[in-house]
Amino acid sequence: MALKIALIGAGRIGKVHASAVMTAIPNATIVAVADYHLSSAQALADAYGIALATDRHLDAIHADGVDAVIIASSTDTHAPFIIDAAKANKHIFCEKPIAAQLDKIDAALAAVAEAGVQLQIGFNRRFDPTFARIKQAINEGAIGTPHLLHIISRDPAPPPVEYVKVSGGLFFDMTIHDFDMARFLFGEVEEIYASGGVLVNPAIGEAGDIDTAMVTLKFANGALGVIDNSRQAVYGYDQRVEAFGNGGSAGNVNLYPDAVTISNATRVERGSLPLNFFLERYMDSYRNELTAFVDAVQNGTPVPVNGNDGRVPVVMAMAAKKSLDENRPVRLSEIN
Amino acid sequence: MALKIALIGAGRIGKVHASAVMTAIPNATIVAVADYHLSSAQALADAYGIALATDRHLDAIHADGVDAVIIASSTDTHAPFIIDAAKANKHIFCEKPIAAQLDKIDAALAAVAEAGVQLQIGFNRRFDPTFARIKQAINEGAIGTPHLLHIISRDPAPPPVEYVKVSGGLFFDMTIHDFDMARFLFGEVEEIYASGGVLVNPAIGEAGDIDTAMVTLKFANGALGVIDNSRQAVYGYDQRVEAFGNGGSAGNVNLYPDAVTISNATRVERGSLPLNFFLERYMDSYRNELTAFVDAVQNGTPVPVNGNDGRVPVVMAMAAKKSLDENRPVRLSEIN
Amino acid sequence: MALKIALIGAGRIGKVHASAVMTAIPNATIVAVADYHLSSAQALADAYGIALATDRHLDAIHADGVDAVIIASSTDTHAPFIIDAAKANKHIFCEKPIAAQLDKIDAALAAVAEAGVQLQIGFNRRFDPTFARIKQAINEGAIGTPHLLHIISRDPAPPPVEYVKVSGGLFFDMTIHDFDMARFLFGEVEEIYASGGVLVNPAIGEAGDIDTAMVTLKFANGALGVIDNSRQAVYGYDQRVEAFGNGGSAGNVNLYPDAVTISNATRVERGSLPLNFFLERYMDSYRNELTAFVDAVQNGTPVPVNGNDGRVPVVMAMAAKKSLDENRPVRLSEIN
Amino acid sequence: MALKIALIGAGRIGKVHASAVMTAIPNATIVAVADYHLSSAQALADAYGIALATDRHLDAIHADGVDAVIIASSTDTHAPFIIDAAKANKHIFCEKPIAAQLDKIDAALAAVAEAGVQLQIGFNRRFDPTFARIKQAINEGAIGTPHLLHIISRDPAPPPVEYVKVSGGLFFDMTIHDFDMARFLFGEVEEIYASGGVLVNPAIGEAGDIDTAMVTLKFANGALGVIDNSRQAVYGYDQRVEAFGNGGSAGNVNLYPDAVTISNATRVERGSLPLNFFLERYMDSYRNELTAFVDAVQNGTPVPVNGNDGRVPVVMAMAAKKSLDENRPVRLSEIN
Repeated sequence: MALKIALIGAGRIGKVHASAVMTAIPNATIVAVADYHLSSAQALADAYGIALATDRHLDAIHADGVDAVIIASSTDTHAPFIIDAAKANKHIFCEKPIAAQLDKIDAALAAVAEAGVQLQIGFNRRFDPTFARIKQAINEGAIGTPHLLHIISRDPAPPPVEYVKVSGGLFFDMTIHDFDMARFLFGEVEEIYASGGVLVNPAIGEAGDIDTAMVTLKFANGALGVIDNSRQAVYGYDQRVEAFGNGGSAGNVNLYPDAVTISNATRVERGSLPLNFFLERYMDSYRNELTAFVDAVQNGTPVPVNGNDGRVPVVMAMAAKKSLDENRPVRLSEIN
Repeated sequence: MALKIALIGAGRIGKVHASAVMTAIPNATIVAVADYHLSSAQALADAYGIALATDRHLDAIHADGVDAVIIASSTDTHAPFIIDAAKANKHIFCEKPIAAQLDKIDAALAAVAEAGVQLQIGFNRRFDPTFARIKQAINEGAIGTPHLLHIISRDPAPPPVEYVKVSGGLFFDMTIHDFDMARFLFGEVEEIYASGGVLVNPAIGEAGDIDTAMVTLKFANGALGVIDNSRQAVYGYDQRVEAFGNGGSAGNVNLYPDAVTISNATRVERGSLPLNFFLERYMDSYRNELTAFVDAVQNGTPVPVNGNDGRVPVVMAMAAKKSLDENRPVRLSEIN
Repeated sequence: MALKIALIGAGRIGKVHASAVMTAIPNATIVAVADYHLSSAQALADAYGIALATDRHLDAIHADGVDAVIIASSTDTHAPFIIDAAKANKHIFCEKPIAAQLDKIDAALAAVAEAGVQLQIGFNRRFDPTFARIKQAINEGAIGTPHLLHIISRDPAPPPVEYVKVSGGLFFDMTIHDFDMARFLFGEVEEIYASGGVLVNPAIGEAGDIDTAMVTLKFANGALGVIDNSRQAVYGYDQRVEAFGNGGSAGNVNLYPDAVTISNATRVERGSLPLNFFLERYMDSYRNELTAFVDAVQNGTPVPVNGNDGRVPVVMAMAAKKSLDENRPVRLSEIN
Repeated sequence: MALKIALIGAGRIGKVHASAVMTAIPNATIVAVADYHLSSAQALADAYGIALATDRHLDAIHADGVDAVIIASSTDTHAPFIIDAAKANKHIFCEKPIAAQLDKIDAALAAVAEAGVQLQIGFNRRFDPTFARIKQAINEGAIGTPHLLHIISRDPAPPPVEYVKVSGGLFFDMTIHDFDMARFLFGEVEEIYASGGVLVNPAIGEAGDIDTAMVTLKFANGALGVIDNSRQAVYGYDQRVEAFGNGGSAGNVNLYPDAVTISNATRVERGSLPLNFFLERYMDSYRNELTAFVDAVQNGTPVPVNGNDGRVPVVMAMAAKKSLDENRPVRLSEIN
């Protein structure tokens, strides 16, 4: 029988999840949708024939027969809504980050533990076919023992400065995905050294943030890593990884909208720039992560990205921030 | 207002079209589905909340408010169903080929002309982002005046011999897509020389067909082309084009499920083989061709692949067959 | 002991051979150089410290201790000089083609046979690391049984019309390399169908030649091939092969002067165009073919490209010309 | 008139330089060769017809008509031989590093300054066509203002532990090339943070060195960089750079011995592994750096890699070592 899901949040990412569940995941269906703006909830409900639209998240959580909740509302609601859903004994899929403060995260995780429900965090990039293939290569021993990891993660264009002011900054809104990717591929990190600068837009610096960073990671297994971030890659969304070990390496190039090359008397060029928009670049990953969540819940197996996987990247972002502020390597144990 | 569509045929390709219309084309909806097997029609209707399921194609065509018909039933029904739909004054999207005989094609086209409806033929590859990009490059003058065209079109594995016996053979069931691609990119062909062999499976030869071909094309504009076909490319679905002119060239590589490269002490290899299944390789194109059809019908503009575009590749297949049989170049004017 | 060589012809290709022998082949040395222009011979002799410079080819052939002769003079002298060298009992390396007429070729081959010396023909592309790797892949069974062969061979710019008038035309001066490549990779050809046009330069047509061709090959083993020629590829020297069989394929991309990609807000492009000049593109092959010749002579093993390998491509060019003239497939047995 | 050169050192790299000068640089010639082992000097002199072979470097420096000296002897002799050559008023090309100690470097540079001769240091990678193309792209503004630099520099296999013991360690014998590359591409570095480990071979750790490193660079212009080193890349010599700025990026892939791809039912792979040996990978660069040196000396223009360019990478290696030892970022001003 199809898993019955309540969706909280009918904004951009909520729509992505709704489309995934309703058109691509046969063993799940959305039965209720809540949004602070009722009209948004109603529009999404109409589009997919969802029975209940509401502006009260608890009504959605407690709608008839609901097995699981997808939390896709604004970041500050993640932790309280996790707690509400856990108390209602629902399995939970929650967008990252759980919260920006460890105590809020820990409270949410405690509620989940007490309820004995499953919690999956929306680190979607793990489910991207390209990065999943690199992970598989590592697991299969294709690179041997991991030695070095490169993560290049550059956005096509900087967000509005207003966003930067509330997001927690580059390490919390952008690098956090890369911290997760680092753990996903090479395991736990023990120490971080972050360098950064304001090279893209001075207004970002005035807002107290950086827009360019190079973050060194020391892994528990002795491997070394680096994350290279920029708020602006003019040629498109630059998302690459290279994992290197004593047996070889696995890495990827960017994805393009076509597979064309054009040659003329002046140049040989690609038919297009790399995919520019994160929803295009990572569309498959959103469907895949929900498929994995639904399957885990239905089979009673552990979800692939759990609460701790949501917590540690926040710790890493804190360590990176401290490292940048103090210009010294910072151990994660200093944060926890 | 959304275009109301009757879908005839609820098999593999009918399902693809239903999914495209119901999940990705907001300005169209399917209101009736017909299939020779009523249970197939009913299942598809249930999946998408389609009001009418029937085993009688005329019931679907004449269902309330139907504006257009998608014909995705077996090949021998294409021409009569086109005539039925035209008589009912519905716009028509029909899978290729219209028919294997020119008189049947001409009768269907005459009915369409008399009714004044639009008819689009399902040469989906024109709407593949990669081949569309090559077409755009040619249109923009990126290669200058066309000189040479290569079309590589190899299936991952041969069809059952039973299929070969009824399909009309390689030129009619496989190369026909490439004949359309040749016209799409370089314009009309005047003469064809076909060579072929039975290199993949002797049973195909015993069934009177070939499984490997090299077909030379002489275009009206003086350009030359070649189509290279095989029923079996063990590494995957091999679909490539290279257009060359006095100003340059535009070509493509195959598409892969990931963008990964793995290196070890023995080799440097791709993370995966090329996409193997035509529905994966061309999924976007099915959605795009229907989007174009719906838009053309709603805007009253010409459809991008019309009845003549459905007829000429059949003529080309006939010329290729004659050329192969007689081992000499054959002009299309010999066929018409 | 180093093989002692007399070099006949101190023009462009003669200089290439001199450089290869004198700087890269330790077990050979040039002891005499002849050129119709004594000053050219003398200049080359001075550059490498060669003892004898002469304007009489026989003096070079008969210089003290000469073991072998490299013939790099104008095409019309190849056959007579082969005969002179054979009569002097010298092993011979001769640039292609031996001659444009079969009777002259046969006379030269008869002289070689009678003398019992070795004759290697300068089909240098067999020794290019890229094409040699494709040959190796075929030999190792990497593609299984050969089915289809594509040879793309396009010059960066057309030669002077004066050259076209005396060269014998495109099939004899350009495609002849591709005929050799076809035999090298897939074995003997039985039938040829050639189509061609004058698309690059009308003056080439007025001189009685074509500048663009698409040549279909039927191999004795049942495989099919196509050679695609143009006198003008504005982006550089376009030299590619794809060999396809029931076990896979082996093919190459063009070579570039650097391995750089540059991305900006408008495009992603290669750092340079492909190598443009045949001496750059094939430099390694000239050294490798002479190394192979010297080794074969010193070891008494058969040379890798013998007299018959020099004869057959001329037959193929004749068949292609006849096919073009008569617009029908021509069997090689019609020529021989 | 050709520049007359004395070559000191007839070992592996001395032979490379001799070959470059004698076969590829027409406006220079070697007139004397010295080596501690006279037989080595004599063998090289014989191979190229060099008049003088000696085991006394001063005899070579003072040989008749010598304009310039190439120092390719062991590292500990570089500084004293530079001083000897400068005192003799000869222009100097010297292999890197000048010395492992700053006082020795400074003494050598002072001698050069006093004599008013030119000194070029053998950072050959600047002259590699691929890295030179990236530099050109930066100079032309193709990437805009530099923001981030990645240098991947991995040897195919670790050197003997005995070498590590005397080389000064990874930062001095290997990363030093990358420090030069960083300055070449992005300008001066102000601060370095180095992390490292012994992941390849424990014996290297026992010898007091590391075999794996990730080195963060802060440039004076605000850009950030990272150098990724490993003593062992099993797939070959891994030499890549990516320069990223506000206008785009320029980077390279590795170089291969052929341009072939092979596909079968299991995989799609390159025809070969990347070039494995530094002399193969960088052969062109050795010729190009000497060509530039000879041209600069003959034209009286500044050499492209001067004494200061030889000194600063040693300072950077010292800073990296200090950073690794103290696990903190180290400013170059702490060293100087």
